[in-house]
Amino acid sequence: MQPSVLLLIDVQQGLDDPYWGKRNNPQAEQQMARLLAAWREKQWPVVHVKHHSTNPKSPLRPEQPGCQIKPEVQPLPGELLFTKTVNSAFIGTDLENYLRENDFSKLVVVGLTTDHCVSTSVRIAGNLGFDVQLVADATATFERTGVDGQSITAEEMHQIHLASLHQEFCTVVTTEELLTTLSLLNK
Amino acid sequence: MQPSVLLLIDVQQGLDDPYWGKRNNPQAEQQMARLLAAWREKQWPVVHVKHHSTNPKSPLRPEQPGCQIKPEVQPLPGELLFTKTVNSAFIGTDLENYLRENDFSKLVVVGLTTDHCVSTSVRIAGNLGFDVQLVADATATFERTGVDGQSITAEEMHQIHLASLHQEFCTVVTTEELLTTLSLLNK
Repeated sequence: MQPSVLLLIDVQQGLDDPYWGKRNNPQAEQQMARLLAAWREKQWPVVHVKHHSTNPKSPLRPEQPGCQIKPEVQPLPGELLFTKTVNSAFIGTDLENYLRENDFSKLVVVGLTTDHCVSTSVRIAGNLGFDVQLVADATATFERTGVDGQSITAEEMHQIHLASLHQEFCTVVTTEELLTTLSLLNK
Repeated sequence: MQPSVLLLIDVQQGLDDPYWGKRNNPQAEQQMARLLAAWREKQWPVVHVKHHSTNPKSPLRPEQPGCQIKPEVQPLPGELLFTKTVNSAFIGTDLENYLRENDFSKLVVVGLTTDHCVSTSVRIAGNLGFDVQLVADATATFERTGVDGQSITAEEMHQIHLASLHQEFCTVVTTEELLTTLSLLNK
């Protein structure tokens, strides 16, 4: 059976900066780490994606310490890492070529943030024909202000974006569901 | 001054089918028609995009009558029309080449639906470096069910998606704001 590629998007220290506002799913990094450990154990393909912001105010500018990947999911030597400057992990990177050349058609996506880089990458992956699972509790986002001035909590933002993505661009799953499937595969 | 391209996405009759659930912004097509009339008057570039669904149940399959573009924004002979089979107007079409070859860097986006094809196309356009204005009242979407089973109204869906897109992928504007700017340009 062909393995799924675990794609970790923008799990960077600078996303802990108060600049971004309040977040949901504080346990998301722990769930990502559980999945990453399972993938490494199986020697399945792992791809890290890191954002190099071009916005002068962003904590994710390449020269900022916040650009570093969080310790929970630090890449190991030999694991693939793509850097990007826009939301989509497929624009300005070699990700699509890498997947096609290796005949990888299935992706499991985790990372930050649900409605910006994760959503954009999942949409493009789905539209390019990849079979995508998005892990609800291994992603998270921030509160935002609506164009009509209303406050939107991070959790509302997260849930509504999952609803738009599910069964249109991907299948939304949980870490537990995925790990259960993997443990059945081991038997 | 270089004109913006008016991009009309999936304004198709089959989106009136009860299959999709309740919609917001019932006046969206009228706003699209006002913008289209203004663009035609100025002889600015107009691009229609039409969805040819590959889903057997969709009212937007190419052989279904619902695949036709709505009368309010029916393309005129000579206006450009791209057909697509996925959400993004940039995947599997010649849209990006057309924009680059003509040195068009600015887009005004209208159409259906806010969170699926409009959002996906706006995200990719922004990430490809185009300067995008998204017209809030000339787009609309449908109610959906969350992955946690909660009901999400079309208006909630619409507002939350606009909030995620605004100032990250595009600038969200209204028809009135755009038409006011155009009338000032006429003076």
